[in-house]
Amino acid sequence: VPEPRDGQILVRQTWMSLDPYMRGRMSDAPSYARPVGVGEVMVAGTVGEVTASHHPDFGAGDIVQLYGGWQDYALSNGNGVRKLDPAAAPQHALGVLGMPGLTAYAGLLEIGKPRAGETVVVAAASGAVGSLVGQIARIKGARAVGIAGGAKKVAHVKEVLGFDDCVDHRAPDLPGALARACPKGIDVYFENVGGAVQAAVWPLLNEMARVPVCGLIAQYSDEAPRPGPDFLSILRKHLTVRGFLVGHFAGLAVDFRREVGGWLAAGRIKYQEDVVEGLERAPQAFLGLLKGANFGKLLVKIA
Amino acid sequence: VPEPRDGQILVRQTWMSLDPYMRGRMSDAPSYARPVGVGEVMVAGTVGEVTASHHPDFGAGDIVQLYGGWQDYALSNGNGVRKLDPAAAPQHALGVLGMPGLTAYAGLLEIGKPRAGETVVVAAASGAVGSLVGQIARIKGARAVGIAGGAKKVAHVKEVLGFDDCVDHRAPDLPGALARACPKGIDVYFENVGGAVQAAVWPLLNEMARVPVCGLIAQYSDEAPRPGPDFLSILRKHLTVRGFLVGHFAGLAVDFRREVGGWLAAGRIKYQEDVVEGLERAPQAFLGLLKGANFGKLLVKIA
Repeated sequence: VPEPRDGQILVRQTWMSLDPYMRGRMSDAPSYARPVGVGEVMVAGTVGEVTASHHPDFGAGDIVQLYGGWQDYALSNGNGVRKLDPAAAPQHALGVLGMPGLTAYAGLLEIGKPRAGETVVVAAASGAVGSLVGQIARIKGARAVGIAGGAKKVAHVKEVLGFDDCVDHRAPDLPGALARACPKGIDVYFENVGGAVQAAVWPLLNEMARVPVCGLIAQYSDEAPRPGPDFLSILRKHLTVRGFLVGHFAGLAVDFRREVGGWLAAGRIKYQEDVVEGLERAPQAFLGLLKGANFGKLLVKIA
Repeated sequence: VPEPRDGQILVRQTWMSLDPYMRGRMSDAPSYARPVGVGEVMVAGTVGEVTASHHPDFGAGDIVQLYGGWQDYALSNGNGVRKLDPAAAPQHALGVLGMPGLTAYAGLLEIGKPRAGETVVVAAASGAVGSLVGQIARIKGARAVGIAGGAKKVAHVKEVLGFDDCVDHRAPDLPGALARACPKGIDVYFENVGGAVQAAVWPLLNEMARVPVCGLIAQYSDEAPRPGPDFLSILRKHLTVRGFLVGHFAGLAVDFRREVGGWLAAGRIKYQEDVVEGLERAPQAFLGLLKGANFGKLLVKIA
C-alpha cells in the first residue's frame, strides 16, 4: 500500500467497473486513446473510501468516484475525483448514473434524437448502456426494440425493462425476427455491437434514420479490417452515422444525473447489476463481458 | 406543342441541366424518389421563356426556371417555377446559383462545417458541385484539395479554381498521391463519387472528421451491394457521415443565392460550363457525365 504525498489522497477501492471500451486499451491499433502499456495498471472507473488525505478537498472516510484502475488501493491527486453521497448506492456512479448512463443518455438524445412514435433499436439490451437506451426511448414516446442473447435476457428486457419487443440474436433467422419486431422500420439504431446485428439492422433503416455509433463489441478482436455495410444506403436513405465518445458530452453530466436520477428514484428506470466478487476474478469476468456472459451492468466488488 | 389550359403556362425551353442524380431516377432500386416510368418525360431542371400564359403570376416573355424535363416545350401550373432576371446569365440558375450550387453550399457548410486551417477534400473537383465546394472551403480559410480526372482538369482546379492542390484519380498511386496532398490528414470529405476515391480517403480521415454524402457516382451502376468502408473507423475516429438531399436545405436558398451570387460577382468564385448543343445530344452527354467526360457544369442548349 503506497503512502500519499502532499496533494494526494489514498483510496481503498471497493467497486470497479468493467466496460467494453477497455478492449480498445488492450490493443495498439490506432485509436483516440493511447493503449495501456505492458506493466502499467489497467484503467477502470472505481469507487472507494479515502483512507488518508493530504489534499484540502478530501478527508478520510469520504466515499469517492475515480479512475483508480484495476487495483486494491489507488493514489490520486484529486483530478477527476468526485465525492459521492454515502447514503446512495455508490456503485451506481459506475453505471446508471455514471459513464455508461451518460453514454446512453447523450448518444440517444443528442445524436439519435428519437421522436414519439419512432422505432429505436439497441443491442446488448440488458446491458448497462442498452437497458438505459431503450427505457429512455420509451420515456420519450418511442417504440423500443431490444436485441439480447438468450431467453433469460430477452424476457428481462421485455418484462422488467419494459421494452416493446426484444429479439434473440441467437435466433436462427435474426433478420426476419428483427423485421417482424420493427414493422415500421427503424428510425434510430444505437450501435454498440456491429457484426451480424448491424447486418440485420441495416436494410430496415428508414429514410433519415440516425445511427449513434457507441461501440462495436463484436468487432474489437478482428485481426483485419472488415467491410462495412452498404454505403449507398447512407446516400439513398439520408442516414446520419456518427461515432461518439462520452467525453464529447461531458457538459451534459449535471443534467443527466438530475434527470436520470429522478427517473431511477421514481421507478421509471430499472437497473440490473451483475456483481463479481474479488479483483482476481476481473480478467475472467471481462472476457465474459466480451461474449455477453454478464447479465446487467458488470461490476467487480473489490472489498 | 401543347396548349396551356386555365392556370397553366407554356414554356419554350432553352437550357437543360444534366446532373448525376438522374441516374437514380433511371433505376427502380429503392430510393427517396420514385423512378421515372417508361414512357414518361425524363426529369430535368430547365430554363426557358414563357410563350403563353393562363396563370396570373406569369406573362409571355418571362424568363423562368422550372423542372421542365427533357423536352422542347413544357406545360406547368406554376408550382416551383421561379422568374429569373433576364439581364443575368439565366443558365446560372441551373448550376452555380441553382441546385448544384446549393448542394455544395449547404452540404459543405451545414454538415462539413470546415474551420480555418482544416483540410477539405472533394472529388469531381472541376464539376458543378465539386468546384464550388473547394472554392467555398477556401473562402472559409480551409485548405482545399481536389481530385479530378486527367491533367487538363487537374490544372484547371489548381490554376483557375485556386484549390491548394489537386490529385489525378487516374494516377498509378492514388492513395499515396492523396496522402502527400493532405499532410495533416482530412477533416472534411465531401463525398460525391465513392469507389476507389473513397477507399483512398478513408484512412486519411482525422479524428472528428465530417463526411457529407452527396453522391456516389462511381457506384450508381452497381448490380449488387458493394461492401462499405471500414466501420470501426467511424467509432475510433468519431466520424460523422451523413447522407443528404439538397431539399433538406431549401430554407437556405435565399441566403445561398445572395452569398454565392456576391462571390461570383466579385470574382471570388470561378465557374466553368460545358455546353452541349441540341436536346438530341442529351443521352450521349449524360452517359459522358457518368464517366467524367464533361468539363464543368454540363448543360444542354435546347434552343
